[in-house]
Amino acid sequence: MYTCNLERLQEKIDTFKKFGDTGTGGITRLSLSPAALMARDEFAKRAKAMGMRLKTDDLANMYATLPGSEELPAIVMGSHVDSVVNGGNYDGILGVLTALEVAETIYTEKIKTRRPITVMIWTNEEGSRFEPAMMCSGVVTGKFDKARALASTDAKGVSFASALDASGFKGDEKNRLNAKDYAGYFELHIEQGPVLEMEKKEIGVVEGVLGMVNYTISVKGVSDHAGTTPQKTRKDALYAASQLIVMLWERLGKLDPELVFTTGKINASPNIHTVIPKLVEFSLDARHRDPKVIDRVVDVIKGLPAELSGCAVRADLNWSRNTVLFNSEYVDAVEKAARDAGYSWRRIYSGAGHDAQYVAEVLLPATMIFVPSVDGHSHCVEEFTPTELCLKGANVMLNAILEIDKR
Amino acid sequence: MYTCNLERLQEKIDTFKKFGDTGTGGITRLSLSPAALMARDEFAKRAKAMGMRLKTDDLANMYATLPGSEELPAIVMGSHVDSVVNGGNYDGILGVLTALEVAETIYTEKIKTRRPITVMIWTNEEGSRFEPAMMCSGVVTGKFDKARALASTDAKGVSFASALDASGFKGDEKNRLNAKDYAGYFELHIEQGPVLEMEKKEIGVVEGVLGMVNYTISVKGVSDHAGTTPQKTRKDALYAASQLIVMLWERLGKLDPELVFTTGKINASPNIHTVIPKLVEFSLDARHRDPKVIDRVVDVIKGLPAELSGCAVRADLNWSRNTVLFNSEYVDAVEKAARDAGYSWRRIYSGAGHDAQYVAEVLLPATMIFVPSVDGHSHCVEEFTPTELCLKGANVMLNAILEIDKR
Repeated sequence: MYTCNLERLQEKIDTFKKFGDTGTGGITRLSLSPAALMARDEFAKRAKAMGMRLKTDDLANMYATLPGSEELPAIVMGSHVDSVVNGGNYDGILGVLTALEVAETIYTEKIKTRRPITVMIWTNEEGSRFEPAMMCSGVVTGKFDKARALASTDAKGVSFASALDASGFKGDEKNRLNAKDYAGYFELHIEQGPVLEMEKKEIGVVEGVLGMVNYTISVKGVSDHAGTTPQKTRKDALYAASQLIVMLWERLGKLDPELVFTTGKINASPNIHTVIPKLVEFSLDARHRDPKVIDRVVDVIKGLPAELSGCAVRADLNWSRNTVLFNSEYVDAVEKAARDAGYSWRRIYSGAGHDAQYVAEVLLPATMIFVPSVDGHSHCVEEFTPTELCLKGANVMLNAILEIDKR
Repeated sequence: MYTCNLERLQEKIDTFKKFGDTGTGGITRLSLSPAALMARDEFAKRAKAMGMRLKTDDLANMYATLPGSEELPAIVMGSHVDSVVNGGNYDGILGVLTALEVAETIYTEKIKTRRPITVMIWTNEEGSRFEPAMMCSGVVTGKFDKARALASTDAKGVSFASALDASGFKGDEKNRLNAKDYAGYFELHIEQGPVLEMEKKEIGVVEGVLGMVNYTISVKGVSDHAGTTPQKTRKDALYAASQLIVMLWERLGKLDPELVFTTGKINASPNIHTVIPKLVEFSLDARHRDPKVIDRVVDVIKGLPAELSGCAVRADLNWSRNTVLFNSEYVDAVEKAARDAGYSWRRIYSGAGHDAQYVAEVLLPATMIFVPSVDGHSHCVEEFTPTELCLKGANVMLNAILEIDKR
């Protein structure tokens, strides 16, 4: 079994976290911003030093390729270097740095691969500068219209088209990830949730991205003083919200034993013990592999009363997506690599969306490898994964690739 | 019948609302803050202009007295000038300004009173800067320990003792409100509820302060990831808390039509849409004049399940108080003054706590006069009472005092 190098990986993490360092522990590395371009330059410099062939496509997605010994489609590892505002230094960038470390291990250890090995950077995954999220994998896989993507503007009114032109990383459309030149896709990512850590697993073998809907349910009442307002004249938004949560558990609980749903977040206003709440908002997140079950969840939401206990109720869909299953051969290869290395692992579904899901859905066999997020934190200053665990993830990716390369 | 002056009262309201104006429609005039000290200075200036004798006690409670024609204990009118953060310009301050206007009417119209007439300002009624609320009436009436009050610190770590020393308003303990030098106490206040407005009454003849209990109910579950934890193994603290709130409404709603209860505050932890809540805490506030009904509330709380939907439930009593009845002679005098003036009125209980309740409980005959709160709002930017109604309240206070003064 081959292994990557801890010091080398640490050095990569330390170097790249300077690009977009906010000075307060966080990272702001918006897509195609000066900080993101510095990260791309550093990536290009390191790829060239290993003799990798560099290409960019018309959306500035970057591809750095080590040659293989045979004329075969390449295996790709990739992720993104952009972050949210004041995010952490692991979401996205860790997938690029571990991929680079895997390539460096193959290069340094002179590991023979039949297939070329490509490390790629997706442009604008977060959608924090230009909406929507996963924009460029979306365009490459035909999920999003390119013209609309180019017209998307940032907070300062700069269009994605002009940011692309100014970046120096805009290349040719024919260089896009495609099913002729590439064989399959791996993406290492932090879990962005608490499951691996809670269950003391080092590796998440990602089976797919679960179909889901996410709603904000708002209940509007009237604030009045707790001591003087007769009970029967009250419009108490928290009472109505509590009734709704109980109602949702009853109705959703009947749909399917594998359906999971969560009201994880609740905020009441003004949230003072002597004042009747005038507004309560809570989240509803529901997930199931089968889109038909999700449709029935939507029916339940739509069937909620518009008024309850004098309060106005509305449900706003924040996002939804269908289940994407990853390629079982690739998933098995990841599991085998984790098992062979003696790492603790579990199969898991991704709750968050990733570029890998678009690739898997329409373009190439694909899968992901998760490493634990300390305390489940992500998109914040506290986002962290110990380098030892990042290294184990990189080792799994390296050996899964070598396994796939044999076939 | 004597009447106060609308323009003069309006001028007082307009002048004092500048002290602590947040610039966004609200008032922040924390106890002994620069804004509150400006209000005290303005009060002192106006009292001195009428030749009133000014005193402060060891807690910076202020007393301004017009002489009477006989050597008798004084009649006191008072309230507070401190506000909550981003509160309104009527809670507290209106009781001081109408008292000042009553004194100014007596002074200007040369109304002869047998007894001296005192206008007083209580320090730190809201408890927004230094806990607890009604701190200084509490110390004066022996409800609270003075040493503990002095040790109370604000958000910046400043103690009440050092704020008192720095205020310039700290006086002598012998100046405290007492049963030898004072005969009785009146306090005008906004209702802080919707009852008077709903019933189109101009004056609330306050019979007492309602007994109450205040609990924090904690529900302890287990946090797990929203996407991966099977529904039936979950211990969702927000689901259990919602069931409890619905249960409380059902059980408490049956006890007595005049019982009011409120779950005004709720906090979930970690409060993330992808994580099952592990801890939810909410407040329960219940009020009724009959201690037997409050006892039945306590029985309902004690009868809550210790475990619900896999979560541990506990209820902690934060505070309780018994109903305080105001002096019936004083209450009748207020009612007579309202009736004689031809104002619409109703008898009412105060749901909120006031300095008057401590005075009534242990020190002096006391009562309160309520004026309507538009839309029942209080402790917020929307807090408002038209000056015409404030004036009617002042007129009632003036004539009730003159009635008591005859006896």
